[in-house]
Amino acid sequence: GTGACADSKLLFRQLFEKESSTYTYLLADVGDPEKPAVLIDPVDRTVDRDLNLIKELGLKLIYAMNTHVHADHVTGTGLIKTKLPGAKSVISKASGAKADHSVEHGDKIYFGKLFLEVRATPGHTAGCVTYVTGDSPDQPSPRMAFTGDALIIRACGRTDFQGGSSDQLYQSVHSQIFSLPKDTLLYPAHDYKGFTVTTVEEEVAYNARLSRDKETFKTIMENLNLSYPKMIDVAVPANMVCGFQDPPSKV
Amino acid sequence: GTGACADSKLLFRQLFEKESSTYTYLLADVGDPEKPAVLIDPVDRTVDRDLNLIKELGLKLIYAMNTHVHADHVTGTGLIKTKLPGAKSVISKASGAKADHSVEHGDKIYFGKLFLEVRATPGHTAGCVTYVTGDSPDQPSPRMAFTGDALIIRACGRTDFQGGSSDQLYQSVHSQIFSLPKDTLLYPAHDYKGFTVTTVEEEVAYNARLSRDKETFKTIMENLNLSYPKMIDVAVPANMVCGFQDPPSKV
Ligand SMILES: [Fe+2]
Ligand SMILES: [Fe+2]
Repeated sequence: GTGACADSKLLFRQLFEKESSTYTYLLADVGDPEKPAVLIDPVDRTVDRDLNLIKELGLKLIYAMNTHVHADHVTGTGLIKTKLPGAKSVISKASGAKADHSVEHGDKIYFGKLFLEVRATPGHTAGCVTYVTGDSPDQPSPRMAFTGDALIIRACGRTDFQGGSSDQLYQSVHSQIFSLPKDTLLYPAHDYKGFTVTTVEEEVAYNARLSRDKETFKTIMENLNLSYPKMIDVAVPANMVCGFQDPPSKV
Repeated sequence: GTGACADSKLLFRQLFEKESSTYTYLLADVGDPEKPAVLIDPVDRTVDRDLNLIKELGLKLIYAMNTHVHADHVTGTGLIKTKLPGAKSVISKASGAKADHSVEHGDKIYFGKLFLEVRATPGHTAGCVTYVTGDSPDQPSPRMAFTGDALIIRACGRTDFQGGSSDQLYQSVHSQIFSLPKDTLLYPAHDYKGFTVTTVEEEVAYNARLSRDKETFKTIMENLNLSYPKMIDVAVPANMVCGFQDPPSKV
C-alpha cells in the first residue's frame, strides 16, 4: 500500500478445487455499479459453487478466463457459457484453443475500471500467459499476478508436454514475473501443500527450481521422472474448445 | 481501506491442512524490526511446513494460539514449543486446557504494534473464542476475525459435544461476530468446499443456519444427524494440554 488504497474497490476471492488441487480466482470491480467480474481458471466440477457465489455477491460475470490449456482438469469456461450466456471465454491466441477472445502479450482485459495485463509466459505449455493487475495508481496495490503453472509456490509446472520447454520457462519467469515489484502477490493455478499465495521476493529467494541458474534449472526439469499425466487425454481436447463445448443435447 | 492503509504492515498468510480441512493463519507485524508473528490453529502434521515458512520470511513466532480444543485434529502448538522454545501457547481460560497464556474475553494479544482482541464465542465448545484484529486506525482495515468453528462459511460447527449449546452459539455469533462492521473478513478454522474467506455482510445474508431465527437454528442443529467425531478420543485429550505435550523421550 502506498497511501492510495486503490485496492478498496477490488473484490477478490480465491477458491479451491480439491481433486485437481486447482485454484480459481474471482475478481470484481465493486466500485462500478454493475460490479463486473472475471473468473480465472474455473474448474468444471465447481462451476455451480462459483456461479452461486457470484450471484450472492451481486456480481456480473463478464469473462471466464484460462491461463492455459490445462492437462489435469476440464476448464469450467464451457459450462459457464451454457449457464450464463453473457459471459465470454478468454484464452491466449498462442494456445491454439477456441474461445470468444484470444488474447496476446500486452493486451489489457478490463472489468469496470480495473484491468488485467496479459504477459506471455510460455514454457509449461507454448500458450501459457500470466494475468497481472495494472500498475497505474487506480489499480490494486500491491500488484497481483495469476501465474497459472508457469510458477507454482516454490516450484513450477512440468515442461515435458504441450510444447513445453524448460529453457523457455526459465526465460519467461525471469523476464515477466521476477521482474515485477518484489511485493507483487503471486497466485498460482495449483498448490499441493496448502499454501495460498507467495510474492516475487519469496520466489526469487526460495523457489526450489527457478531461483537457481538456468543450466541447473534445466537439469532439474529433465530429471523429474514424472508419470504420464492421468487426465491429459481427456482434458486437453476438451480444453482446446474451452468456450465452445456443445451444450448437453436436448434430444 | 479508509485512506490510512494501516494494513500495509500486516503480513498475512492462510495455510490449509488437507486431511482435516483445517486453516492455519500466520500474522506478523513486518513494520516491527523483530517481525513478531502469531500462528492461529496450527495442525501437528503441518508444523514443519509452517515453521519453515516463518523462517524463510524472517519472522519471530511469539504465540501459537488455538481458537478452541479441537476434536478433529491434534493442534501443532505442543510440537511448535518443542521446536521453538521461545514460542508461547495460547488458549482460552474457559477451555480448561493447559497453555502458557490462558486468555479471556476482552484481552488483547499484541505482536509488535498489532493486536488481536479476544471475544468469547461459546456454543460449539464451551471455551471457543474468536480472535479479532483491533479497530483503532493503526490496525488492519477492513478488520479480520478468526472464528474457529463458531462460524464456518455458510455454516457453523456442531454443538453436540464438548459443552456445546446451539442456544449459546446463536447468541455468540449474533452478538460477537455479526455485530462487527459488515466488511469484516471472516476466516474460519475449516472449510470443506474450497472457500477461503467470507464477510459479515455475506454471512448475515446467506449463512444457511445462522441467518435464520433462533428457533429455526436450534431445530436445524438438533437434526444434523452427524456421526460420532472420529478423532475426538485422540484429539481432545492431546489438545487439553496443547502447549505441554511431553517432548519425545530420548530414552
Ligand atoms: Fe497446466
Ligand atoms: Fe472444533
